[in-house]
Order: sequence, then C-alpha cells, then structure tokens
Amino acid sequence: MEFLVSIEVRLPPDMDPAARETVLAGETTRGQELMKAGVIVRIWRVPGRLANVAIWQAANATELHELLTSLPVWPYAQIEVTALATHPLEADSIV
Amino acid sequence: MEFLVSIEVRLPPDMDPAARETVLAGETTRGQELMKAGVIVRIWRVPGRLANVAIWQAANATELHELLTSLPVWPYAQIEVTALATHPLEADSIV
Amino acid sequence: MEFLVSIEVRLPPDMDPAARETVLAGETTRGQELMKAGVIVRIWRVPGRLANVAIWQAANATELHELLTSLPVWPYAQIEVTALATHPLEADSIV
Amino acid sequence: MEFLVSIEVRLPPDMDPAARETVLAGETTRGQELMKAGVIVRIWRVPGRLANVAIWQAANATELHELLTSLPVWPYAQIEVTALATHPLEADSIV
Amino acid sequence: MEFLVSIEVRLPPDMDPAARETVLAGETTRGQELMKAGVIVRIWRVPGRLANVAIWQAANATELHELLTSLPVWPYAQIEVTALATHPLEADSIV
Amino acid sequence: MEFLVSIEVRLPPDMDPAARETVLAGETTRGQELMKAGVIVRIWRVPGRLANVAIWQAANATELHELLTSLPVWPYAQIEVTALATHPLEADSIV
Amino acid sequence: MEFLVSIEVRLPPDMDPAARETVLAGETTRGQELMKAGVIVRIWRVPGRLANVAIWQAANATELHELLTSLPVWPYAQIEVTALATHPLEADSIV
Amino acid sequence: MEFLVSIEVRLPPDMDPAARETVLAGETTRGQELMKAGVIVRIWRVPGRLANVAIWQAANATELHELLTSLPVWPYAQIEVTALATHPLEADSIV
Amino acid sequence: MEFLVSIEVRLPPDMDPAARETVLAGETTRGQELMKAGVIVRIWRVPGRLANVAIWQAANATELHELLTSLPVWPYAQIEVTALATHPLEADSIV
Amino acid sequence: MEFLVSIEVRLPPDMDPAARETVLAGETTRGQELMKAGVIVRIWRVPGRLANVAIWQAANATELHELLTSLPVWPYAQIEVTALATHPLEADSIV
Repeated sequence: MEFLVSIEVRLPPDMDPAARETVLAGETTRGQELMKAGVIVRIWRVPGRLANVAIWQAANATELHELLTSLPVWPYAQIEVTALATHPLEADSIV
Repeated sequence: MEFLVSIEVRLPPDMDPAARETVLAGETTRGQELMKAGVIVRIWRVPGRLANVAIWQAANATELHELLTSLPVWPYAQIEVTALATHPLEADSIV
Repeated sequence: MEFLVSIEVRLPPDMDPAARETVLAGETTRGQELMKAGVIVRIWRVPGRLANVAIWQAANATELHELLTSLPVWPYAQIEVTALATHPLEADSIV
Repeated sequence: MEFLVSIEVRLPPDMDPAARETVLAGETTRGQELMKAGVIVRIWRVPGRLANVAIWQAANATELHELLTSLPVWPYAQIEVTALATHPLEADSIV
Repeated sequence: MEFLVSIEVRLPPDMDPAARETVLAGETTRGQELMKAGVIVRIWRVPGRLANVAIWQAANATELHELLTSLPVWPYAQIEVTALATHPLEADSIV
Repeated sequence: MEFLVSIEVRLPPDMDPAARETVLAGETTRGQELMKAGVIVRIWRVPGRLANVAIWQAANATELHELLTSLPVWPYAQIEVTALATHPLEADSIV
Repeated sequence: MEFLVSIEVRLPPDMDPAARETVLAGETTRGQELMKAGVIVRIWRVPGRLANVAIWQAANATELHELLTSLPVWPYAQIEVTALATHPLEADSIV
Repeated sequence: MEFLVSIEVRLPPDMDPAARETVLAGETTRGQELMKAGVIVRIWRVPGRLANVAIWQAANATELHELLTSLPVWPYAQIEVTALATHPLEADSIV
Repeated sequence: MEFLVSIEVRLPPDMDPAARETVLAGETTRGQELMKAGVIVRIWRVPGRLANVAIWQAANATELHELLTSLPVWPYAQIEVTALATHPLEADSIV
Repeated sequence: MEFLVSIEVRLPPDMDPAARETVLAGETTRGQELMKAGVIVRIWRVPGRLANVAIWQAANATELHELLTSLPVWPYAQIEVTALATHPLEADSIV
C-alpha cells in the first residue's frame, strides 16, 4: 500500500553545528537504505524549504509509523500522511 | 487495517422530500450491511450535524474507497480519511 | 458517554533524555491503567507523529478533564475533544 | 451537563418569504419551549449575523443531538458543539 | 454588556514550579474576586486544556480590557473576545 | 462604544438587475442616514471587493445588531464584528 | 520537470446523468492519453473523494496549465499545483 | 505605487456559453488596454486555475479599486490585494 | 492614503523587566509623536490582547513601512496591513 | 521559468546583534548578486514585516531551490513558492 508523506524539518537555528551535521548525515544514510529497500518509492524536495514529499510503500499504517520514526530527523519533523488508493487509470494500465 | 473516517452530509435544503427519504433510507440499509460485515467497527453521531465519525476496517485504502463510494449519500458527502496505526497500548493488551 | 480525543505531544527536542524517559514511561503505565479501567475504549497511533486518537468513556466532560490531566504528558500535550452522540446504526444493533 | 453551542443560520436569499416566516416563527416557538424547559440555559445573538451562541443543558451528547435537530432552522444551520466541564471557580462557589 | 471570552493559558513546560504555583494561586484568588463582583457571570473549563470559556459582564470593551489584564495569567494567555447582543428569546423572557 | 465592522456582500451573479439596483440604492440611502447620525464614524472600501471596513458607534452590541440588520444588503452580507477598547494613546490625547 | 497536482472534482448533485457520464468517460479517455504520453507519471485516488493526487511531467508551468485545462472535468475541478525539485536521494541514486 | 493582486474567477459551470464567451472576450480586451496603459505591469497565470497574479500600478487604493471593478469578470471574481513597498534591493539598483 | 494596520505584540514572558519597560515606554513616546504628526489617525486596543488596530496615513506603502519599523516594539510585533480605498459614502460627504 | 516567492524572516529577538548584522549584510550582498544575474526579476517589501515577495527566474524548481538556500537568511526564513505560467496577455504582447 502506498502513502503520500510530507515531511517538514525544523532544526533550531541555534542548534549545535556538529549535532546538526550528525542528524543530516544520518538522515541521508537512512534515506538511502529506505530507497534501496523500496520503501521510499519516489521523493522530491519542496523548493525553498527543508521539506520533502514522497511516496512510501508499507504493508499498513503501523509499519509506516515504524519506518517514519526510524528517521534521525523525526524529533524535529512535522509529518503529514495521506493513505492512497489505486486510481483506475493505473489499474487499467496494469491490464 | 483501520481508518478514522469523518463524513459530513450536505443535502440541499430544497431537495425533493421523496428523494431525500430514499437517500436516507438507503443509507440506513447500507450502513446496517456494513456493520454486520464488520466493515464499520464503531460509529458515532457528531451532535448537531448530519455527520458522523466512524472506525472502518478495510484491507487497504483502495478497498476503503470502494466501500465509501457504495454509500447512497456519497454524492452529497464531504469525507476525510485518516489511516490509523496500532497504538502500543492496544498491542500490549493483546499479550 | 464517549468522547473522541486527539492528543499530540510536543516534547522539546532539547529535553533532558532522562526526563523524557520518565515522562514516556509514566505515560505507558497510566495508559495501561486507563485501558484496564475501561476509560480508554480504543486508541490508535497517528502514523508519523507522537500523537494518538482515542475513544474515551467518562460520565461527563468534568470527569474527562480530570482523567486527561492525570496523563504525565499533559503539560506537553495539545488536546482536542469532541463529544460523541450515539449513532442510530449502533442504537439499532443493540436492539 | 452543559454544552456551548454556536448556531449560524444560512437561509437562501431567494427563499420564499412565506416559508422563511414559517421557519423563523417556528424557531421562536421552539426556542421558548426549550428555555422554559431549562434546556437553553442562556442565549446570545452574535451581532450582525443570523447566529447565536448559547449554553445548552442535556444529559449527554445523544440527547443534545435530538434537541438540536428539533429546531425548525436545523436544515439551514451550521452548528458547532463544545462539551463543557465544571470550572473550579464555579465548583468552589457551590461550597 | 456581556462578552464571551475564551482564555487559553500556555505556561512554559520548563517554568519554575514555584513561579507556576504563584501564578495559578493568584489566578484563583483573582477569579474568585471577579465572580463575587459579578464580572465573571459564568465560567467553564474546556476539557483537556488549560483553558476556559466564560461570560464576562463589563460596561464596555475598555473596562473589559482592564479586567482581563488584571489576571495573573495574562502574560501567558491567548484571549479571544466576542461581543454579545441580547437574543430575542431572553428579551422575551424578561417580559 | 466603537466597533470595527467588516462587511462583505455577495450578490448572486444571476440576480435580477433591477433587484440589484434596488438593494444597492437602498444601501446608499441607509448608509448616508447612518453617517449623518454618527453611527458610522468612518468607512473604507476594501479594494477589489464589494466589501468595506468601518468604525461603528453604538451603545452596545444589541444596538449594533439592530443597526446592522437595518442595512438592505444584510441578507447578502457576511459580517464580522470586533469590539474596540480605548487605546491609551487616544486617552492621553484627550487630556 | 515534475509537479505534484491535487485535483478535486465537484460535480453538482443535480447534474444531468448523461452529461455526468459524458464528462467522466471523457476524463478516462484523456487520462489514458496523458499516461501513455508520460505526462501523468503516477496517479492515486484520495479515498472517499472524487479526487486524486498525481505526479505530472511538463516542460514548465505554462505547458502544465495547457495540459490541465485539457481535462474534461476542468470546469468542475479545484486544482492545486506544487512545483517539485529533485531530492538529493534521487539525484544520488542516479549516479 | 504597486500592488500584488490575485484574481480567481469562478464562472458557474452551468453558465450560458454565449454569456461566458462575452465575459471572457471582454476580459481580454480590457486586459490589453490595462497593459498598454501601464496599469498591469506584469501578469501570470496560476497553473490549473482560472486565476492570475499580477502587479498593478495605481496612484492609490481608490484608483486601484476603480480599475479592478472595470474588469468584466469582476462580478465572478475573488480578489486579494497586497500593498507593496519598495524593497531596498530595487532602491539600490536605481542608484 | 489610509491603511488599516493590526499590530499584535508578543513580548517573551521571561523578558527582562527593565528591557520590557524600556520598550513599552519608548512605544508610548513614539506613538504620541505619530499621533501628533497625523500619521496615526485613530487607534484602538483589541480587548484582552497586547494588540491594537489603527488607521495610519502615509503617502504610500514604502513610507508606511518606514513608519512601522520605527516602532520600538517592531522586533516583537506581528503586523498586518490592508490598503484602504475611499468609500463612496465618505466621498459623498465631502461634497 | 518564473516563480512567485514569498519570504518571511524570523530572527529571534534575543539574537546576538553582531550575528544579526552579519546575516542581514550578507543578505544584501547576495540579493544584489541575484538581481544582477537576472535571477531576482522584481522584489518588493511587504509593509510592516521583515518579509518580501519577489519574482524569481530559474530553469526549474531544482535550480530555484539551490538559489533560495544560498540566501544567508535561509535558516530563519519561511518560504512559499508558486510556479507561474505565462498569461495570454503577456504572450500577446510579445507578438
């Protein structure tokens, strides 16, 4: 099942630079793992913001929650999830 | 998988009374079917409004969409869906 | 009487880790008590957020307020309450 | 139990004048009954709008819903309900 | 003249406990004075929040502002004021 | 006592032109009366909209409501009222 | 360049059934063309609503506007467009 | 003085096609006049909507209002105006 | 040209009392200057808030911006500006 | 391709004055570079706020994101981007 996930990260402006680097580097590593595993199907940057929208693949919302909370930026993130249904245009294209 | 579904129905005030009756009677019948089938797990009336909040059980968002569009009030409804994850307190209580 | 209660917890990112653990551990304990007592009827995690939606059973809003303020996360929580009426579909199913 | 209820009425500008009169006259009659019965504890007009805020007394949200739907303006009304808890200042004053 | 006043208090989670106690104790004392003086006509707790809605009686908005700023929680409060007009149902009941 | 009043008028695009003229001409006449009477203290057009913001003078919200409902556009208007308190800068300037 | 496009369709409940069918059938045909052309990259149904979210590929916003207004449902649609930037995780995966 | 003006046009879906054509053709003619006169400095289409954002030049808000209400689409338009101040970067570039 | 300006000031609750006094005293002095100069035409307190609404007179938005940023509370203020056009009722009254 | 970009900067009131100066001076320098390069086509100050609206020229959203994150105020900025399509009135004027 696919989900549309919007993530906006709000790192405090006065955050320790080293801590900031650690979080962002960890985020890249974890993101790469999730892409290789097929969990993050597609991901885009929202221009001008430390934010992204992405398509996530998970068995259900419970698994999705575990995956989202595995992100190093999670304590700093505002996350919105929309459950997605198959659209007839894609169902047709499968035939 | 469970979903929190909010449905607000807006029947036009000048709707033909017979058509209104037909829609609402059909809604009751369809609602009873969905409750017996275990699709609507719980349902509550929002006081003062032709609206309800309910817990729906469906395999995924695609099946949920088919179920929601089977409601006779669907053309008049404003529907909001939130995918729900298992909460640790309920997971614990299973043990 | 049942209430739909949405709770979003905002722990400061720079919160002392031990204090954070204490609050969250206390929350689990209190939550288990409230479930055993039948106060929390059902509870779900909102995916991607330190948030939940739940059905609470209380005699009235005054008792509900006392129960909600007994949660260790209360000073950090944003809480929304909706009073719920019995829906005809559930009233029918009782007969 | 008391509820804060906001009611905004939107009668269509092209509504038949006689029908409009009937609805508004019926509303006054029903409102007087509910005040005499102690259901509407206090009621105020929101200046400039066909709207009011009021304190309603009902056993619970189910009874409140039945009372609100008994209003002749109900099909034209937008209604918001807030469940109210006893405030310590009023609890103290009872002692 | 009566006003509907909503007050939400946001005390910082890391506020000094003694200072917090002082503010809240002062609030109770001031609240009792305002109730005895007939300024606060009715007051309710919004369940789950450090918030209340109340009916305030004041000669006009200028006097109301002075009364509201006399509250010890004022520096921490978010306040919304709605001016209330007499509703015909209450005007009738006076006759 | 003064009030900040925002009025937005929504005349249906398919309104009968003569009826439209009657409403708008009546509005001008009534507006002139209210200005001469000192009820409308100042009034401005919101650019690009059939809307205005104005300062109204009335004994209280009840009188204000009667004045606002005397406007011919009232059935088509969306009205927002803010009660205004005297600002110290104006109080000082009186001295 | 890719765009996130949300489309919500509001067909009037009293729309002529044949006209409704014509619009929706034309929408399917046009959607299939746009998918085959690689314009609509991915598309999902928002559960419970006559709405979808999709990823559109277009040279720029001008071309996107022409493509969106070619949809038969366009006169009934509420459309939101978000320009998307390449996310580093996808840029990396290209390497 | 320059203003940022957002205009969204909502033509009723069941509008008479000839009337629709007349309005839109008149809009193009009037727009061309306003561009030649230097009133509309720049204008863009918001993709997917019958909407535009533009920079308007007018002596003040009163003149702007007269210009905006001269548009044939005005009775169908939702208009938002933001007064713009000179930015130091443009002031500098003049030197 | 006149502008409707809403200013809400958010002084941090833990602000140094002396600094707070300095800002607020400076604000009063600057406000008195602006009133004497005819820049602030009228000003009102929004009851219950450290906020005001006022009518400002300035040649244009650029001058208005300079005047607003001359306020000592500016770094703590949330400011909303609405450009105002002359209303026909005031234009008429000039004749 | 052009974009409408709104930038609101929120510098903490207790920010070190030297750091504040450094950020704002760097912002001016970077802004001048972007104007000379034709990236910032037009820019305006939103009166009363540390905010601007501007027209940015970039090949696509990815390039725009890189340009926006090159601003020294970026860590303190709230940025909204709207992709702009060519309006027929400007397309005509090119001919």
